[in-house]
Amino acid sequence: MCEMKKLQVVDATMRDGGLVNDFYFEDALAKALYETNLRTGVDYMEFGYKASKRLFDPAKNGKWKYCKDEDVRAIVDSVDKEKKAARKMKIAVMADVGRCDFHEDIRPKAESPIDMIRVATYLDTIPGAVEMIEDAANKGYEVSCNLMAISQAKEAELDEALETLAKTPVSVLYVVDSYGALYPEHAKLLVSKFLEVANKYDKKVGMHAHNNLQLAFSNTILAHSIGATWLDGTYDSMGRGAGNCAMELLLGYLEKQGFDGYHMAPALPFLDEYMEGLKKKGIVWGYDLQYLMTGLLNQHPRAAIQFTKEGREDHEAFWRELK
Amino acid sequence: MCEMKKLQVVDATMRDGGLVNDFYFEDALAKALYETNLRTGVDYMEFGYKASKRLFDPAKNGKWKYCKDEDVRAIVDSVDKEKKAARKMKIAVMADVGRCDFHEDIRPKAESPIDMIRVATYLDTIPGAVEMIEDAANKGYEVSCNLMAISQAKEAELDEALETLAKTPVSVLYVVDSYGALYPEHAKLLVSKFLEVANKYDKKVGMHAHNNLQLAFSNTILAHSIGATWLDGTYDSMGRGAGNCAMELLLGYLEKQGFDGYHMAPALPFLDEYMEGLKKKGIVWGYDLQYLMTGLLNQHPRAAIQFTKEGREDHEAFWRELK
Repeated sequence: MCEMKKLQVVDATMRDGGLVNDFYFEDALAKALYETNLRTGVDYMEFGYKASKRLFDPAKNGKWKYCKDEDVRAIVDSVDKEKKAARKMKIAVMADVGRCDFHEDIRPKAESPIDMIRVATYLDTIPGAVEMIEDAANKGYEVSCNLMAISQAKEAELDEALETLAKTPVSVLYVVDSYGALYPEHAKLLVSKFLEVANKYDKKVGMHAHNNLQLAFSNTILAHSIGATWLDGTYDSMGRGAGNCAMELLLGYLEKQGFDGYHMAPALPFLDEYMEGLKKKGIVWGYDLQYLMTGLLNQHPRAAIQFTKEGREDHEAFWRELK
Repeated sequence: MCEMKKLQVVDATMRDGGLVNDFYFEDALAKALYETNLRTGVDYMEFGYKASKRLFDPAKNGKWKYCKDEDVRAIVDSVDKEKKAARKMKIAVMADVGRCDFHEDIRPKAESPIDMIRVATYLDTIPGAVEMIEDAANKGYEVSCNLMAISQAKEAELDEALETLAKTPVSVLYVVDSYGALYPEHAKLLVSKFLEVANKYDKKVGMHAHNNLQLAFSNTILAHSIGATWLDGTYDSMGRGAGNCAMELLLGYLEKQGFDGYHMAPALPFLDEYMEGLKKKGIVWGYDLQYLMTGLLNQHPRAAIQFTKEGREDHEAFWRELK
């Protein structure tokens, strides 16, 4: 096994972005995104979720909600061999604790084009996360554990969770600011805490940010500056609610800072054609005043997403409702 | 004279925002903004520029390009006495070196409703800035000096400029990231350098950020965290190109951090009615991919503004043109 290089950039466009369009991405987009990631230097492309078909109706969700091995493989196989030969990129999928039939739906690595399972958990489902991490590791996958809604974590509970997780075969522990509520000081504290445990157990730390306070990019490079080495981004920030750290901002930054192999410019045709295309079809995401509000209140963005869907503009009334 | 309190929040909506709509703000907006600022806790409201009528045709610009004393006074006088009695807010205007007939157009403070003249200069017009600072101070005004395009400053030149300016009657030295090109490390270096000189000469340091890299808010609170005490914002980020640090983000942050007297919620009706109103009239500003590009290249945003005006969407071609 080759040694992990220092920085790992993860493209979560189809996974977090899928929460915006119910995972109905066309194959042409998936293929173009794959090719774009090969050129921009992205290290891992996350295709979507491994969600339970019992819990989530396949008639109401696109295929990237489930990421069957054959669907992922079809995209990879559709890309020219030459393009793939130029650079190795790995493939990730996310699996939520309690929402994934992992015993059946995650097949042994030897049979799958997927390299990494990203186990997403809340702090109150750590035993379930441990079970899934061990299952995925036993099947031969790299595994990360993504701790969601981290801005609401109680310190003692978090300490215990990190110690428990660090003793599993997980490779990366992720700070996930689901509510986009972290100010830099808070982000710094959390990343430092994760790093302390990670360094003790030879794990890595990742950052997955949301843009409710226009801090997704800023918190991502802040996390990197103090030692986090796994950084999530999505093209045009596509993701739930206010969206994520814009991949193009992250790539531009890394390129300018002299990190080898990362390039912003190859993202532009994809942004112009596919991300603009989604917007023109009426798919809406990204920073707006209603997301500032839920971020400020350290709340799940669902009320703001609903406000957006309804086309409401009365932020003053919305603020009173939230409070 | 009362002692300056530690933090000063400056609303630059009509000044920097005026660069987007040629300063055609209606009186109703100016009045509503003034009242909003009284309620949100803004310390200084910048009405616009004191621009030369010889150089800038009054037929092609709204009155806030010139900020005549009587125009400013009319807005202040239109606000209910009770609202004004609740809190003292000061008034600022900007005067660009070489673009202001300050001998005639800036009247003695005793005759004017304006409290502060913000002298804006590039590094190669420092002698002109010194002349204007001294003139304004002699007339009885508080004075700041706003060093524009600071991301391109050469160190020796900047050191010399700061030393020269610090010996004038200026109160505040402003880091102005006109190109929105500062990454946090660079912003930190510059603010630290400004603070070093400011502390020696008993001056204050301010931050005026642009949002090309989605770092305007982040850089503003970063500057504050290391000692800058004058912070500029604009409602809904309204300002040239990618716009500024969003005032509502800044207010929400300060309120949450426990800074007395700052409130986000009173901004909401103004945002809903007036800022949304401007957007619905087709006034365009704010972060977009073309501004990322000029920020990344540390360039003036004029090419990106033109790209936006022309309704272009071909970012890939634009990038090649810029390079």
